[in-house]
Amino acid sequence: MTTAAIKVTDLHASLSDPALDSMNFLNEIANRYPDAVSFAPGRPYEEFFDTRLIHEYLERFESYLRQEKGLTDEQVCRILFQYGRTKGVIDDLVAEHLAIDEGIHAAPESIVVTVGCQEAMFLVLRALRADERDVLLTVAPAYVGIVGAARLADLPTVAVPGGPAGVDLPALAEAIRRLKAEGRRPRACYIVADHSNPSGISLSTADRHALLKLAETEDFLILEDNPYGLFSAGDERPPTLKSIDTGRRVVYLGSFAKTGMPGARVGYLVADQETVGGGLLADELAKIKSMLTVNTSPIAQAVVAGKLLTHGCSLVQANEREIAVYRRNMAALLEALAKRFPAGSGISWNRPHGGFFLVLSVPFDADDALLERSAREFGVLWTPMRHFASGPGAARAIRLSCSVLTPERIEDGLDRLAALFATTTEKAESKRIDTDSRHLEQTITGLDSYTSIQKEPPRC
Amino acid sequence: MTTAAIKVTDLHASLSDPALDSMNFLNEIANRYPDAVSFAPGRPYEEFFDTRLIHEYLERFESYLRQEKGLTDEQVCRILFQYGRTKGVIDDLVAEHLAIDEGIHAAPESIVVTVGCQEAMFLVLRALRADERDVLLTVAPAYVGIVGAARLADLPTVAVPGGPAGVDLPALAEAIRRLKAEGRRPRACYIVADHSNPSGISLSTADRHALLKLAETEDFLILEDNPYGLFSAGDERPPTLKSIDTGRRVVYLGSFAKTGMPGARVGYLVADQETVGGGLLADELAKIKSMLTVNTSPIAQAVVAGKLLTHGCSLVQANEREIAVYRRNMAALLEALAKRFPAGSGISWNRPHGGFFLVLSVPFDADDALLERSAREFGVLWTPMRHFASGPGAARAIRLSCSVLTPERIEDGLDRLAALFATTTEKAESKRIDTDSRHLEQTITGLDSYTSIQKEPPRC
Repeated sequence: MTTAAIKVTDLHASLSDPALDSMNFLNEIANRYPDAVSFAPGRPYEEFFDTRLIHEYLERFESYLRQEKGLTDEQVCRILFQYGRTKGVIDDLVAEHLAIDEGIHAAPESIVVTVGCQEAMFLVLRALRADERDVLLTVAPAYVGIVGAARLADLPTVAVPGGPAGVDLPALAEAIRRLKAEGRRPRACYIVADHSNPSGISLSTADRHALLKLAETEDFLILEDNPYGLFSAGDERPPTLKSIDTGRRVVYLGSFAKTGMPGARVGYLVADQETVGGGLLADELAKIKSMLTVNTSPIAQAVVAGKLLTHGCSLVQANEREIAVYRRNMAALLEALAKRFPAGSGISWNRPHGGFFLVLSVPFDADDALLERSAREFGVLWTPMRHFASGPGAARAIRLSCSVLTPERIEDGLDRLAALFATTTEKAESKRIDTDSRHLEQTITGLDSYTSIQKEPPRC
Repeated sequence: MTTAAIKVTDLHASLSDPALDSMNFLNEIANRYPDAVSFAPGRPYEEFFDTRLIHEYLERFESYLRQEKGLTDEQVCRILFQYGRTKGVIDDLVAEHLAIDEGIHAAPESIVVTVGCQEAMFLVLRALRADERDVLLTVAPAYVGIVGAARLADLPTVAVPGGPAGVDLPALAEAIRRLKAEGRRPRACYIVADHSNPSGISLSTADRHALLKLAETEDFLILEDNPYGLFSAGDERPPTLKSIDTGRRVVYLGSFAKTGMPGARVGYLVADQETVGGGLLADELAKIKSMLTVNTSPIAQAVVAGKLLTHGCSLVQANEREIAVYRRNMAALLEALAKRFPAGSGISWNRPHGGFFLVLSVPFDADDALLERSAREFGVLWTPMRHFASGPGAARAIRLSCSVLTPERIEDGLDRLAALFATTTEKAESKRIDTDSRHLEQTITGLDSYTSIQKEPPRC
């Protein structure tokens, strides 16, 4: 006798959450059209990938352990092969990188090296969900991974519109006060302050200071996720929230997926908040990690460490070529858009100063059916904002990512997109659908896009 | 102003669970006495570690992708560097290993490659916790990691004594019926059927069949964790539960930590149960994984794959030397115990047919204070069963692991242990404490030991 098929209602609620199903759909369609020009994935550029680098980075870390740390061969072997420290074995190198590139001065003991930034998110959310009163605030539109992680931790999320500035502080303050009045506890607010996914928006320096002040006044933590900060179009970057966090209000969520190597699956968090027992929040998060993944693969850590060591612990230096590529691609995308969609076309977009993404507002519904047709008939992929968001703005919005493309592919892809739009706009016009793209940022309040969510590579 | 220190009561309940604190204590004491002879860790033997192997294994997998899978250099790079398939990229090789070494014929699509077996446990427990009625049964004494993972998933555990046979089927059936009568749902039963941690006990073939039958009758899943199955003292092994699981009752939890390389942090699960939607439980678990760790590092997977490929996908073949070492060590441990603690000494132990562990019953309390004194005065470490268990048997029991030692170290360590016992037995005798070690297996009902839980390696 075989077990009766398992009903989804007999499984954890996260498995019937739209966030997880959306991702499945988007991954699936991306896999079905592998040759399409894809503005969909938030993956890093691939031209400079070279498998020899993995070996070089490993060797660099090995020789560092021998020569600079004075370890014996046996000790080096033990670090790479054996179970390892829960909080990681490259915490000091991560701290050095943060000081050099981000102006963040983190004590190594406040750092937990994680299995990508995604695990870091879950660790924090699992810890902060003490009871049913607890709530996570997300600045919308927000990366879908944070909502997914919150679902796994049974932590409700409340989306607060980010607005054109990337954060709407009065709205955030109002949401917090309302939640508190209802007896809820807004424990933390998740935000990507630099070149947010999906909006591409960065917070001003003034808003960063004001957000920190609000966190102090209203007593919540800020979860600062920063995967794209290094990829600014200009040389001037506003300070990371963590670097101006004098009150230990910020838990910093770090990723090496875009700046190091996605395949290493190494991220980290900085949690220097004190706990009553005398330790740091990082120590509590490490306890959770010990029951979740035990420790992050030291081999994967070694690859990232080798890259750091090769570049004097500066990922700005390590990513000189990539930074140039992303600047080039964003400029090419903006130019190609302007060429094809003049004022009055009904199509508009924001102009991020860096990062991988921008949001296109269109005068028709950008839904799954349109994406299917786009892939099938025009060979171009993109991410419908509505898939993860609610509101009319999101329903008629598209996230475009330019990170894995070349200017030529961007041109080609936008030709395809324009051809799709030409057929679609007519239909939409015949239905007399109105849209006001200025309201985009105010109205999309839900999740976002599947950056960082893998598609199926060639199977092996 | 700095945030007020965070109270543990404002954090998730798992963080005040004794299981997580116990581990911290045990890790901490192990770190304080790095030169002690340690019967504590369930780590694999280190003599054959060689960092060159990492490079060789990576190269072996790369050439496999090129030559046997026909991938281009660009595709190989993408697999290793880029975000990857959630369910893993070495599922077919894992399936081949299972067929060759374990008699398990798993479809690759039923496999999810995970960040160690620990993540596999969490994925299953997170999925099975639909509401507050759900319960996980553990066959006691059980690996502490399963209880920790259950705490993270808010899934209550009910320990059922395993008894001298490793599973007490009438007790298990009774516990299930009682839980059901209370309106609870025993969703699954966790068991290490081969050389269990900490008891070293293996289930008989008859009990394996009977357990599967009970799972069918009472409608629950069996979570079969099998990290030590290959390390049998004899050549005859009973079948894995999964290999005789005709009714898809078993979710198989696989580890490469002992047979592959702990530092890769690669494990997997086999979940071929159907779901109502038409997919497999593995697909649902992959959805959870996508929000937890996104995917397992393909570099780490490549290292394990390279080891598999080097040995025709047989880990029995790959571990010929290790299997011989563990047999030698277990024999040495049993002999050294017999030499020092003759009948009438009040000290007894079980005689496992393989694996890393055995349990020593002693006529005095084996508590933290004794472990501290053991480390400080005698330079020998072990794991107090009481730390994770309840009942008088567990209070006077010790887990000994022989996996990282040599026969010489085992002799030395047992001299130290005997010296400790000599001072302790006297004290205990003066208090006239009675113990009946035959009741050990019946009375220890709680958690176990910290196998797989890392100590701090030399920092780097």
